[in-house]
Amino acid sequence: MAPQLEPFFKQVDESSESFIDRLRKAVAIPSISAQDENRKDVFRMAQFLADELTALGAEVEQRPLGKQPGKEHLDLPPVVVARYGNDKNKKTILVYGHYDVQPAQKEDGWATEPFELTIDEKGRMYGRGSTDDKGPVLGWINVIEAHRKAGVELPVNLLCCFEGMEEYGSEGLDDFIQAEAKKYFKDTDAVCISDNYWLGTEKPCLTYGLRGCNYYSVSVSGPAQDLHSGVFGGSAHEPMTDLVTVLSKLVDPQGNILIPGLMDLVAPVTEDEKSLYGNISYTMENLHESLGSETGIHPNKERTLMARWRYPSLSIHGIEGAYSAPGAKTVIPAKVIGKFSIRTVPNMESEDVNKLVFDHIKAEFAKLNSKNKLDVWLQHDGKWWVASPKHWNFSAASKAVQQVFGVEPDMTREGGSIPVTLTFEQATGKNVLLLPMGSSTDAAHSANEKLDRRNYIEGTKLLGAYLHYVAEEPATQ
Amino acid sequence: MAPQLEPFFKQVDESSESFIDRLRKAVAIPSISAQDENRKDVFRMAQFLADELTALGAEVEQRPLGKQPGKEHLDLPPVVVARYGNDKNKKTILVYGHYDVQPAQKEDGWATEPFELTIDEKGRMYGRGSTDDKGPVLGWINVIEAHRKAGVELPVNLLCCFEGMEEYGSEGLDDFIQAEAKKYFKDTDAVCISDNYWLGTEKPCLTYGLRGCNYYSVSVSGPAQDLHSGVFGGSAHEPMTDLVTVLSKLVDPQGNILIPGLMDLVAPVTEDEKSLYGNISYTMENLHESLGSETGIHPNKERTLMARWRYPSLSIHGIEGAYSAPGAKTVIPAKVIGKFSIRTVPNMESEDVNKLVFDHIKAEFAKLNSKNKLDVWLQHDGKWWVASPKHWNFSAASKAVQQVFGVEPDMTREGGSIPVTLTFEQATGKNVLLLPMGSSTDAAHSANEKLDRRNYIEGTKLLGAYLHYVAEEPATQ
Repeated sequence: MAPQLEPFFKQVDESSESFIDRLRKAVAIPSISAQDENRKDVFRMAQFLADELTALGAEVEQRPLGKQPGKEHLDLPPVVVARYGNDKNKKTILVYGHYDVQPAQKEDGWATEPFELTIDEKGRMYGRGSTDDKGPVLGWINVIEAHRKAGVELPVNLLCCFEGMEEYGSEGLDDFIQAEAKKYFKDTDAVCISDNYWLGTEKPCLTYGLRGCNYYSVSVSGPAQDLHSGVFGGSAHEPMTDLVTVLSKLVDPQGNILIPGLMDLVAPVTEDEKSLYGNISYTMENLHESLGSETGIHPNKERTLMARWRYPSLSIHGIEGAYSAPGAKTVIPAKVIGKFSIRTVPNMESEDVNKLVFDHIKAEFAKLNSKNKLDVWLQHDGKWWVASPKHWNFSAASKAVQQVFGVEPDMTREGGSIPVTLTFEQATGKNVLLLPMGSSTDAAHSANEKLDRRNYIEGTKLLGAYLHYVAEEPATQ
Repeated sequence: MAPQLEPFFKQVDESSESFIDRLRKAVAIPSISAQDENRKDVFRMAQFLADELTALGAEVEQRPLGKQPGKEHLDLPPVVVARYGNDKNKKTILVYGHYDVQPAQKEDGWATEPFELTIDEKGRMYGRGSTDDKGPVLGWINVIEAHRKAGVELPVNLLCCFEGMEEYGSEGLDDFIQAEAKKYFKDTDAVCISDNYWLGTEKPCLTYGLRGCNYYSVSVSGPAQDLHSGVFGGSAHEPMTDLVTVLSKLVDPQGNILIPGLMDLVAPVTEDEKSLYGNISYTMENLHESLGSETGIHPNKERTLMARWRYPSLSIHGIEGAYSAPGAKTVIPAKVIGKFSIRTVPNMESEDVNKLVFDHIKAEFAKLNSKNKLDVWLQHDGKWWVASPKHWNFSAASKAVQQVFGVEPDMTREGGSIPVTLTFEQATGKNVLLLPMGSSTDAAHSANEKLDRRNYIEGTKLLGAYLHYVAEEPATQ
């Protein structure tokens, strides 16, 4: 049975200008976590959130994370945690967002001042952080306010976890979440993260999977210093020749990974899973638009999305130590380091992947009969994440989408990583839902970042409706 | 019959301190052609040479070359041309050298001030330009002075051509040489260039060949902008994958060029030529020492030297547009440009090489079935040069080496290029000899460049003796 959401929705519509004003104030604070000189603004943004939540009756704390590793003259911004409601008979939903933003300067190609929210005639609200991630964070605050003003009780206990270092590696957050899982977050029943995007511009989605990433370096070294190609070309083994040959054995131009055994680690596609792809609102034109070219590998939507979401991929990113400037230089580089990464999916375990990668590269190098020296190592890894899209957390969000937007949401995965997702899942042991507010055209991290008015206002309704449907779900794991 | 060189040699020994003082004055002028702020010093160095030559009775001109292309606020340094002697009954020898130097700063790793000639207890004279190429240039001036002081007539007419832009692409020189070939240089009988180095440290050499160089770029482009490897990995053709695959088809790790037909262009080795390699004073230890590693391809001296001097080689220098910094970045580069070059030898004509390279690369790319776009082009080329080591110009130099050093010189080629060599040969139609003064340990272009006192003083004797033996040779082409 659908909850009675009308008074809440009506209040959101009535408060929409004040909600936009709240976003305007937040965008005006340049809380850039990557720039030392803006650290005070990141703290200011934390205080802004704390004040807003306190004014609405939430219990708020700003939790310090200590000094920034490697930059000990800087304090890490606090995690703003808040609790709204403490009723044992209600479910408790933990929501995550971040209040720091990417750097932005007018000269980067912005049409408007990046830290002044500017709304055009189509309701596109331009400003750094509008969609990533201040809009979604304020969405939760708007939900609380609209409930209070409408006199509707919030149907769940809400726990907030808003961090200020997401754009700079979420320094300190993992430890914090692990430490608080059985303390501040202990009564969490499910987690909701609003920090990704719809697949397109019209249809909301719920995201239930992310790929992991294993990032490798492979070095080849020989001579003690760079050599002149005129003097030594033809008489010495060249590290660059060896490296290029080894790199050419990793992946073919059709995207097939050439590392023996690697594809055997990938979970087979089930019929159930297949059925999720056909209805997804995505076209090859969408792909070509985002590529800016018609250089997609696969002939149709289904295979494209599966390649992006549920199969591994291998990308060669570049080479360190070789000549990389424009122009011409007749150098034989003495040591070159190739960089590549593998996007991982179920059931690829990092250690298994590493072993196959290392064995393959060493075997290919051995075939070269080169006197140079090869080394290969893992730079970093992050695990894939897949949740069950049949969990009540997702069912509730799906009903909320249908209520607010009148369509069934796309059930999506993402090719990239949002590491905090897995941290929350592992630390709390609860289902995690990615419930995006913004659309594919929002240009997060780029110039002219924006959030559409519709996405912000209807998105606030969506977050609120989600809490109501969650409250109605049977409380199973 | 050997000329009577004793009075000249005796005078060189007696004047050696003043010759070293001449080098000290020259090194003190930081005539760095690559740095705008030193252009005045390059002009000062031209004036220094002109004054020295004038004082010895030569007719000297400083020929302007106009403004520097691309840097029109700078005048190109003049070519200092000089004539000493104008006797129709004598041969006329044109000698070339350059009076500009590479940049140098103490911080680059110099143990002494780079522009103060500093002589250690072993007679190693450290200073920028000492060996490259102020020592050899002053060698010719010393020869004139020693003859005058000893009362010995110079047995040839000497034409000097000293340039001031060699370390910055010899801007304007080719046109100048072409223009003056039938004017200022018209009675040239042979050319001698002293601007390279002995193969080792003990035995002088005469150099009769240089490899050419064809430098290529090959670009692969696809998407309109760099992509995120999480979002697009597996669903789009990656330019880097294609480029690495194509580059791996150019040369194998044993140095074998994989371009079909290319080796067919190479002149076969003759028995006569083979006989030149066995006696050359070079060992595999020399190779390992200069590499700083035991990563040579070939098992012996002969094959190593032939690979360096008389066979082509292909080196991959680097990739522009890919990620080249330390660390990790999960980028799919949108456009990458591979740089490689082929060192060319007789009888490889540049146009033939280009056609084989372009055809091969396009054919290999076509095999990939990639939707990306490939382009390949020649950045620049410079032709190989081989002179006859049996020409009287070489015979005379060989006799001079035996007279001064008591050994037969090594007959060498070089793997690299000295483009002016071919320009002189083509413009004058005369034999060109490369007659080095410095040794393999002189560190030209590096920190702690030096010229050994022995190489400078005995080298001065060598240049003079060469002129005497040249005068005795039958005047055939």
